[in-house]
Amino acid sequence: MLLYVYLIAITAEAMSGALAAGKRNMDLFGVALIAFITALGGGTVRDILLGNFPVGWTQHPGYIYLTIGAGLFTMLVARFMHHLRQLFLLLDAMGLIAFTVIGCDVALKLGYPLPVVVMAGVITGIFGGILRDILCNRLPQVLRHELYASVSLLVALLYLSLRHLGVDEDLNLLASFAAGLVLRLAAIRWHWSLPVFSYAPGRWNG
Amino acid sequence: MLLYVYLIAITAEAMSGALAAGKRNMDLFGVALIAFITALGGGTVRDILLGNFPVGWTQHPGYIYLTIGAGLFTMLVARFMHHLRQLFLLLDAMGLIAFTVIGCDVALKLGYPLPVVVMAGVITGIFGGILRDILCNRLPQVLRHELYASVSLLVALLYLSLRHLGVDEDLNLLASFAAGLVLRLAAIRWHWSLPVFSYAPGRWNG
Amino acid sequence: MLLYVYLIAITAEAMSGALAAGKRNMDLFGVALIAFITALGGGTVRDILLGNFPVGWTQHPGYIYLTIGAGLFTMLVARFMHHLRQLFLLLDAMGLIAFTVIGCDVALKLGYPLPVVVMAGVITGIFGGILRDILCNRLPQVLRHELYASVSLLVALLYLSLRHLGVDEDLNLLASFAAGLVLRLAAIRWHWSLPVFSYAPGRWNG
Repeated sequence: MLLYVYLIAITAEAMSGALAAGKRNMDLFGVALIAFITALGGGTVRDILLGNFPVGWTQHPGYIYLTIGAGLFTMLVARFMHHLRQLFLLLDAMGLIAFTVIGCDVALKLGYPLPVVVMAGVITGIFGGILRDILCNRLPQVLRHELYASVSLLVALLYLSLRHLGVDEDLNLLASFAAGLVLRLAAIRWHWSLPVFSYAPGRWNG
Repeated sequence: MLLYVYLIAITAEAMSGALAAGKRNMDLFGVALIAFITALGGGTVRDILLGNFPVGWTQHPGYIYLTIGAGLFTMLVARFMHHLRQLFLLLDAMGLIAFTVIGCDVALKLGYPLPVVVMAGVITGIFGGILRDILCNRLPQVLRHELYASVSLLVALLYLSLRHLGVDEDLNLLASFAAGLVLRLAAIRWHWSLPVFSYAPGRWNG
Repeated sequence: MLLYVYLIAITAEAMSGALAAGKRNMDLFGVALIAFITALGGGTVRDILLGNFPVGWTQHPGYIYLTIGAGLFTMLVARFMHHLRQLFLLLDAMGLIAFTVIGCDVALKLGYPLPVVVMAGVITGIFGGILRDILCNRLPQVLRHELYASVSLLVALLYLSLRHLGVDEDLNLLASFAAGLVLRLAAIRWHWSLPVFSYAPGRWNG
């Protein structure tokens, strides 16, 4: 089950990368590269940080084709994408949760301490989007808008807590996805966001 | 032969990094660092992604001196560089091709699947320039202008095809360089570029 | 002794990251993440470049809590920070020196050649700040303002020279900190900086 959700997730992330590249008037190659990095960059950063070689996608060339294909396909259908906006946000939320759970699992298997496991989940969830925004020369959106990175953090904590309590894996996945989706979609619907820190040093304290 | 081309390549890339740093009014240290990263960053990203430690330049300290030296030298001669613009573009194109072929070779030796070998070649070719542009806070030029990243991709595909067909290595290198140079220089001369994807969501679809 | 200085250092760096995030109106999560990356990013980049796994902080979860805590604490006290500006600059300078010395030690233990050891020291010293600035979508400050990266370089060279001469480790640390602090604080006081390279190609030479 998680594999199918993962394939949907990297497809949705690749499409979000392609749209960001389109906003910057990138060429075909730029669209393909940013789609690829948005979809698989989070897992890549996690694998490198954890010393987990070979990096995941290098053993699954199909993921390369899928994400690049999704990016190029997005160029063709971009003009119709706003009709699918609701669906797209749903898939993106499912991707965020799937990435988070998979990231935790990888770090758990490698025997890292619990706080590192949580960070591995969150990094897998959000770093694709952060790399996308760095390449598109804009501030990381995931650190500023409606609850997004926080959903990843809460899903990681919930998933690991239920796991610690011995809850059946399938049930755990179901609960984590349900809680994460409800939280993320509610955040979009009612514009929930974290407090913002605005620091504007005056002239006298530079 | 490839070694000499490689040394010319990292020198040319270091100089392009120094010029980009100069456009941002960086200090001496910034120029040296960005020259170094532009020249050796592509190979570094490749080695890290492939888990190929120790990273190349750490075993050849001479490369550090060469790239930093080339960067600082560029500060002295920058005012005359526009007289050498043609030569510089030629060296840069040779560098792109050399990096691509070397990147493919490294991934081949490590036994990675073919699509990963192609990506290793392209990443070695273009990521130095991408890191340069990220550090200089601008959009990656290689994803927007005349054919550049695509030259790297086509060279990788040609080189690996000829290799697969059993063509002699020297002949293969010659053919790959010839084809890549012709394509890149023609792209510069006649402003060939890939189709651009421009996506500007309207007010009503965010 | 070095451990205490290190803990002070990552706290000061985390606070500088939080302030930078506040200038960009990031949310709570963004502040925490950028504090963490500013404090521990330099060492992380060094460990990855040197193939030194597991990466340092993954074995010391306390560092994660400390840096995130320092980042969030900064949100509360930011309005009073300008009263502590002098202290903050002093702690930041101590951090730069501590990071540099620790970075050299790590590369030495792994048997890397001397130029790579120097680079490992400098990268540990300055890359946290560079990653902070990339995430905040601004030019790396450490490559443009008063002597900063150069202090890291000179400290690395002094520390390794004294070590080579057989000077006692404690005495060496004392001398390296003294020299580094004097140089950095003098640079701030009298606005010492490196020559700047300004390159503005005319319309005719692109």
